[in-house]
Amino acid sequence: MAKEQKKMVDDITSMDEDFAKWYTDICKKAELIEYTSVKGCMVIRPYGYAIWENIQRILDGMFKETGHQNVCMPMFIPESLLQKEKDHVEGFAPECAWVTMGGSEKLEERLCVRPTSETLFCEHFKNIVHSYRDLPKLYNQWVSVVRWEKTTRPFLRSREFLWQEGHTLHATEEEAIEETERMLNVYTEFCQKYLAMPVVQGMKTDSDKFAGAERTYCIEALMHDGKALQAGTSHYFGDGFARAFDIQFADKENRLQYPFQTSWGMTTRLIGAIIMTHGDNNGLVLPPAVAPVQVMVVPVAQHKQGVLEKAREVCDRLKKICRADIDDSENTPGWKFAEYEMKGVPVRLEIGPKDIENNQCVIVTRHNREKTFAPLDSLEEIIKQKLQEVRDGLYEAALENRERRTYACKTTDEITKVLEEKGDGFVKAMWCGDPECEEKVKELTGVGSRCIPVEQEHISDTCVCCGKPAKAMLYWGKAY
Amino acid sequence: MAKEQKKMVDDITSMDEDFAKWYTDICKKAELIEYTSVKGCMVIRPYGYAIWENIQRILDGMFKETGHQNVCMPMFIPESLLQKEKDHVEGFAPECAWVTMGGSEKLEERLCVRPTSETLFCEHFKNIVHSYRDLPKLYNQWVSVVRWEKTTRPFLRSREFLWQEGHTLHATEEEAIEETERMLNVYTEFCQKYLAMPVVQGMKTDSDKFAGAERTYCIEALMHDGKALQAGTSHYFGDGFARAFDIQFADKENRLQYPFQTSWGMTTRLIGAIIMTHGDNNGLVLPPAVAPVQVMVVPVAQHKQGVLEKAREVCDRLKKICRADIDDSENTPGWKFAEYEMKGVPVRLEIGPKDIENNQCVIVTRHNREKTFAPLDSLEEIIKQKLQEVRDGLYEAALENRERRTYACKTTDEITKVLEEKGDGFVKAMWCGDPECEEKVKELTGVGSRCIPVEQEHISDTCVCCGKPAKAMLYWGKAY
Repeated sequence: MAKEQKKMVDDITSMDEDFAKWYTDICKKAELIEYTSVKGCMVIRPYGYAIWENIQRILDGMFKETGHQNVCMPMFIPESLLQKEKDHVEGFAPECAWVTMGGSEKLEERLCVRPTSETLFCEHFKNIVHSYRDLPKLYNQWVSVVRWEKTTRPFLRSREFLWQEGHTLHATEEEAIEETERMLNVYTEFCQKYLAMPVVQGMKTDSDKFAGAERTYCIEALMHDGKALQAGTSHYFGDGFARAFDIQFADKENRLQYPFQTSWGMTTRLIGAIIMTHGDNNGLVLPPAVAPVQVMVVPVAQHKQGVLEKAREVCDRLKKICRADIDDSENTPGWKFAEYEMKGVPVRLEIGPKDIENNQCVIVTRHNREKTFAPLDSLEEIIKQKLQEVRDGLYEAALENRERRTYACKTTDEITKVLEEKGDGFVKAMWCGDPECEEKVKELTGVGSRCIPVEQEHISDTCVCCGKPAKAMLYWGKAY
Repeated sequence: MAKEQKKMVDDITSMDEDFAKWYTDICKKAELIEYTSVKGCMVIRPYGYAIWENIQRILDGMFKETGHQNVCMPMFIPESLLQKEKDHVEGFAPECAWVTMGGSEKLEERLCVRPTSETLFCEHFKNIVHSYRDLPKLYNQWVSVVRWEKTTRPFLRSREFLWQEGHTLHATEEEAIEETERMLNVYTEFCQKYLAMPVVQGMKTDSDKFAGAERTYCIEALMHDGKALQAGTSHYFGDGFARAFDIQFADKENRLQYPFQTSWGMTTRLIGAIIMTHGDNNGLVLPPAVAPVQVMVVPVAQHKQGVLEKAREVCDRLKKICRADIDDSENTPGWKFAEYEMKGVPVRLEIGPKDIENNQCVIVTRHNREKTFAPLDSLEEIIKQKLQEVRDGLYEAALENRERRTYACKTTDEITKVLEEKGDGFVKAMWCGDPECEEKVKELTGVGSRCIPVEQEHISDTCVCCGKPAKAMLYWGKAY
């Protein structure tokens, strides 16, 4: 290992030593974020933002394919508007940032910086929906939102974060539930196919629902350290918001009806999930679909005649089929290897005088550091195949981690024991349906309910907590 | 004209009768925006937002081609940070929205919702720039900003608007000035080529510069009603911000130097400019490059056998080369014609039983309502050509309007007279360089200085106001 490479790797705290520090080291050293004097807010730097742009592009395409249109609502919500739905305001008011002055004048009514936009969409729907012909409305917006959190961490929990929020309005309950489930499936496909991140689909228990929702569906992923991360949510509101905001439409028989509503969101915390699902002690590991650079070409002995030219030619060829780049700076190859390992570039391509002589190059895949020689003639085919291999390899490793860390338990004692022995992870255990048992399990074992998974299993007949007959199997875990 | 068509057209106020009402009618009836209970803020609806998405996509591509990277800064600026550059805070503080509460707690320091982000970029640059090797930084962000305006109008002036703000940092003055001018040229090309909107390139006089800038370059367009609209600005800051924020870098000789800075922005007001440059009494007219739908296929006598099938086939063919759509709803063709005229779809394609018999269709271009028959066999070629014709026709008409409404004047009396006789427009007149003369011309004639155009002309030897020797020719006008 070259000296420079050694040095850089030493800079990242080992994840086994201090997982939290390993995480923030990667955020900073891979140049994803930088801190600011605005407490709890961060700068998303070019490399981090390029990941988000790729996430946006793919998700936005999936939204449009399923018939959604983008809009843009104001970032402010008048206090009286936020208060119209009782559960909603109770959930969000404690973490709102409030604008009270415009210029030098005190506002008559204070404005909240949107923590989410249900209330604004409701007001808009009331203005534009009158007849069944106006339905469904399938809207989405890409904006940032603000929640006044006490403790913050880059991507995972910050006072401002970027997200998309889908908001839809439907004539019937069935249609709205179908939409809620459709978007949960879109999220699942996105995470598994593009982020190579396996997720559990499920429903939140009542105590964990979105403020104002009848049902909250979610997808839960398991991080390297055995903690769970909610990667996306999809809410079914019934007609609760429509009633609170008096949205009505005339059906085909000209009777006034309340429509049914959904909302669903994914955020920049996905970047945190990518780091903690795929990263290792050498740094970030990016799934190819969202990697800003998929293949980095590194010329070896680039001062020798013909090397740079050939390396550039190879890079230009690859640019036609993927996001390729070349580092022809004066840094040593060793420095470059370490740099792009840390930045998680999925594939590195090395090419030097010997390779050129043999009409080949060296290909190294980031996730397993596997090194292969590739004939230049069939380079495009091999690179495509390698990128797919990286995605598949990442997915399998993440799935293996989750399976190894998923424990079926019948009692709270079992939970405590298995977590102590094997470390944090998902616990599968039965539940009677009583929120008090949820609370008690958390007190006794430290794990809270994550979701009622769509794919139910039978672990035992009785509740893991109270011993009464079980109603459902839950996933439990410590959560980000 | 079918009854439905007549009715819809009647709904839009004529621009000759009331230009301001004509404008807001289009904003509302073409479903670009909707008002909200948040004063001075609006909902950008799907059709309006799709125009913005096209603007974003093209501009973002141009930024990336010129080496810029996207980032994302926080939306909040602590008051102490905003105050670091004296001119800047003086310019912006009066129109800031202030967050003073987080949840139920009063903040120790109030936060301004960004009206622009120079201060945040400066703080970030200070953190990440240390050596000449770190330069240049060529950054951009797509966000919304807030300015607490008293009087607001959709797109033209609203309390929150969407924009991009480029922020760059350079080792030398020359390089920074080059960047400022490069981006002005990018803006010019974008407006002229893609929005079919001719613009005058120039520099703001000192009294009209951006708060904190050494020079503000701008592009100015002339609207239908003879009023000027600033379509984009590009600022050169010298090292003023760098000194205020103590940003320094070590040059090649390891001496500490202050870097030089620029910023440049374009906003959703471009959509207002499109409306007022190309729109007519039938509604919106969209330049093809940013039109959400470029070709709308309208089947005629669609109940007759084979019509719908053929129309859909034609639409599918067109989708491969442009943004095409079909309206196969049960509304009458007359209703559809009026609807897509109002929405400004550049090309309408009509196809009925007779056309199918003759293996042709009817093509109507929105801007001049020219009707041609096109053989279906060469449809793709003809549509491409028509879309180019629309862009060129729009540009020529807008240029003709501007030229007709641009008046060379030697005295303030001449200005008053020509404006009275011919209506509002650009006035070209000489200026001695004294801000008092600028002020006085405005008082006497109603037109303010718009810019010192890059392309200077000689109108007379002396200042239009004081009669002293002239230093430059200015464009003057009433402005949005």
